[in-house]
Amino acid sequence: MTAITSDASTPAPPAARGLVTSASYSITVRLAADGDPASVGRIATAVGSAGGAVTAIDVVESRPDGLIVDVTCSAADAAHSEEVVAALDAVDNVHVRKVSDRTFLLHLGGKLEVASKVPLKTRDDLSMAYTPGVARVCLALAEHPEDVRRLTIKGNTVAVVTDGSAVLGLGDIGPGASMPVMEGKAALFKRFADIDAWPIALDTQDVDEIVRTVELIAPGFGGINLEDIAAPRCFEIEARLREKLDIPVFHDDQHGTAICVLAALRNALRVVDKSLEDVQVVVAGGGAAGTAIVSLLLEAGATKVLVWDREGILSPDDERLSPAKLDLARRTNPGCRRGELPDALVGADVFIGVSAANVIPAEALAGMNERAVVFPMANPTPDVDPVRARQYADVVASGRSDLPNQINNVLAFPGVFRGLLDARAKEVRPGMLLAAAEALAAVVGDDQLNANYIIPSVFDPAVTQAVAAAVEHSARAEPGATAPTTTDAD
Amino acid sequence: MTAITSDASTPAPPAARGLVTSASYSITVRLAADGDPASVGRIATAVGSAGGAVTAIDVVESRPDGLIVDVTCSAADAAHSEEVVAALDAVDNVHVRKVSDRTFLLHLGGKLEVASKVPLKTRDDLSMAYTPGVARVCLALAEHPEDVRRLTIKGNTVAVVTDGSAVLGLGDIGPGASMPVMEGKAALFKRFADIDAWPIALDTQDVDEIVRTVELIAPGFGGINLEDIAAPRCFEIEARLREKLDIPVFHDDQHGTAICVLAALRNALRVVDKSLEDVQVVVAGGGAAGTAIVSLLLEAGATKVLVWDREGILSPDDERLSPAKLDLARRTNPGCRRGELPDALVGADVFIGVSAANVIPAEALAGMNERAVVFPMANPTPDVDPVRARQYADVVASGRSDLPNQINNVLAFPGVFRGLLDARAKEVRPGMLLAAAEALAAVVGDDQLNANYIIPSVFDPAVTQAVAAAVEHSARAEPGATAPTTTDAD
Repeated sequence: MTAITSDASTPAPPAARGLVTSASYSITVRLAADGDPASVGRIATAVGSAGGAVTAIDVVESRPDGLIVDVTCSAADAAHSEEVVAALDAVDNVHVRKVSDRTFLLHLGGKLEVASKVPLKTRDDLSMAYTPGVARVCLALAEHPEDVRRLTIKGNTVAVVTDGSAVLGLGDIGPGASMPVMEGKAALFKRFADIDAWPIALDTQDVDEIVRTVELIAPGFGGINLEDIAAPRCFEIEARLREKLDIPVFHDDQHGTAICVLAALRNALRVVDKSLEDVQVVVAGGGAAGTAIVSLLLEAGATKVLVWDREGILSPDDERLSPAKLDLARRTNPGCRRGELPDALVGADVFIGVSAANVIPAEALAGMNERAVVFPMANPTPDVDPVRARQYADVVASGRSDLPNQINNVLAFPGVFRGLLDARAKEVRPGMLLAAAEALAAVVGDDQLNANYIIPSVFDPAVTQAVAAAVEHSARAEPGATAPTTTDAD
Repeated sequence: MTAITSDASTPAPPAARGLVTSASYSITVRLAADGDPASVGRIATAVGSAGGAVTAIDVVESRPDGLIVDVTCSAADAAHSEEVVAALDAVDNVHVRKVSDRTFLLHLGGKLEVASKVPLKTRDDLSMAYTPGVARVCLALAEHPEDVRRLTIKGNTVAVVTDGSAVLGLGDIGPGASMPVMEGKAALFKRFADIDAWPIALDTQDVDEIVRTVELIAPGFGGINLEDIAAPRCFEIEARLREKLDIPVFHDDQHGTAICVLAALRNALRVVDKSLEDVQVVVAGGGAAGTAIVSLLLEAGATKVLVWDREGILSPDDERLSPAKLDLARRTNPGCRRGELPDALVGADVFIGVSAANVIPAEALAGMNERAVVFPMANPTPDVDPVRARQYADVVASGRSDLPNQINNVLAFPGVFRGLLDARAKEVRPGMLLAAAEALAAVVGDDQLNANYIIPSVFDPAVTQAVAAAVEHSARAEPGATAPTTTDAD
């Protein structure tokens, strides 16, 4: 998103500043206006002149001496919201009484609730769902632990676990402040895959404590979704949990992103008629997402990948690198090529950005090969301006929802866990991630595929279904990857 | 529940064996019968003769050569279910095809689900509930942590935490097998107090690990309900968590039970016209429940309490006692009285049993004072037969749902946590427990009170409301017990 001028008294016209209004910056402004019938018109005009988009105007109260009006409108960001409010307050005979932020109103009281799936109206209901009837179910499970997935919520639950250390692009904001994201994630699990997920925000950033805590709470969950845990800590946590637990462990920032990128890349390469085995790929960002993307690309058959991070092109002979980055360098750059990101891009076919806002100007893409593919996915502001990138690339995809080809993890994680749970998977294996990516790519048919449509909409119901089926099939085909199904003992 | 004879081939008539059928032992039996119209009648007769109660008969399929019939009926226990099935199979020209246990069917897939409280239908919905809009809420919480209770689920959530070590009367069955109880508890939280509770079954019984794990998962919860953790471990866990956390910690087996007992005792003493300050109380069972009951009775003004456990009357000079029981002995028996339970009961006014099934014969109650009060509450089989106890006591209450005066924790814990959450309580204090008990007792009006109605029904909507209001009021009145309310910043 373009930064707006700090001199709010003389802002450039909104369109010139590239402002895109969003419902996430939607406000409701309560105004007192005089009785002049033209006031409402002036209110709408004021919002429009300030670059806001009016969604609704509701007259709350009408008296002979004036009106109370609620104006709901979208702005581009927080500073822009303030400009819109100031514009309203500047209208003659109109006074701003109260500004409500719709996003905050939506979050009041949190976004999740627990529901009972069984009736609890009568004494008979209680005696089956709770004591004394429940005792028989407990005894049966003590004798047959393999039935816990069948007779408890374990079979359909996922813990969304974070330490609050790398939340969205906001960094280390701690467990309490991370809760709105974790709740949102759980809500998406339910919405897109009918999975019952619960947020667990941990008050520690110590690897041993995180691993042990997740291990100890695991009995009631069928899967662990690690979320927004900073690299390189997230690698060790995930590896150790996978070793210890008999339920799948999946770090969405890594593997969810990798699945979506591989799917999008498969289709982008279909558009430009190149093959994954041949293309030179450059990945900007050697953190959690970058590492997982590289691993999955190599697993899928890519042979030429370079990774760039703040140290430059990651090279095995660079002594400044962390162990995790060194490992990445060894797997991608045995020839010890050095340089900055523009150097790496010379002669590259594919650029995948998961680093930070605007790490290169669009002109740096000029050195790429013909029919380039560019995925600048840093959020909320991409690694390179995706609009300008289109001058240099045949296919562009990003995390931005206001441009074509939005790459959004919601395309992957619900279906992945649906498939894992349905297969009673005990672990996640690379083949399952590959299967998910291929299935996601295949949702876009040949007749639909073009440079502006390489990845389906998150609202396409075929997505979760296709990903889930592929993951379930892959899990069942892997020896030892799933828990045995139990006999139907009811 | 009366044990049934082990000689199933010649059972006594069900009524003579004191069998009470329960929905918790409800089965559906699929039968193939011949085409004779009288068959259905013979089926119903067979169930009745075996002591079962027919709930429904559904003809699933009707062909010229016969019928397929589903018979749903209640039995008294698992052995009795088998007798009913055998009786059906013995009917001429009737064959049992399949027996389904309705309680197990109810538990299939677990009893809880997660629901999103916000719409997720459109891209605008996503942009407010998840990225990018959620980022602003997270940033606001990082700056104002006191708003986490207001803008996340924390303000209405409770973790139901167990180590699976003392589940119902079943003992140490482990975390996985305890899940049906924890789910049931969470369902009751929702049903009776609109609280969103989630089960956390821990894979450890180590005190340090339990304390640390609960401490680490606490940021997303507004309260901790410890459940079915064995004594004396539960005392230390609760004490240490109360020290560390800024949210209330409540062990329902202790304090929920104590609140219900004190409420029931208040009303029983109204019936027999005695005062708590004067009566001699004997508590059988010095575990989690017994200890909490004694503490609350003393807090409420009781002056004469003796505790009996397997070591005899707990006495400070008994060197065999654990530290926890020694503490209990010091607080109740400074005179070092010794003896067995019948000795303690001589001259007692009140017997409260939270020990084990049938620890004394009813005759042992004969030595109690006139107008005795007897609460044998061991589950599922009381400490003394409550039916026969009525010969010796004016007021009898137990945990049994088929007798008057059922003492059930559902009367307390939903309202207690509702009040704690509404007050933004940071801790539980004895005054809040007392307030809950007094409010629960007061739900039974003078015009309703009698020896068979000392405690309200769990389905009385006034119960949770009264308890919640009393706890909230008490919490707000205690200096430093609640988190400050935040300004309404939306």
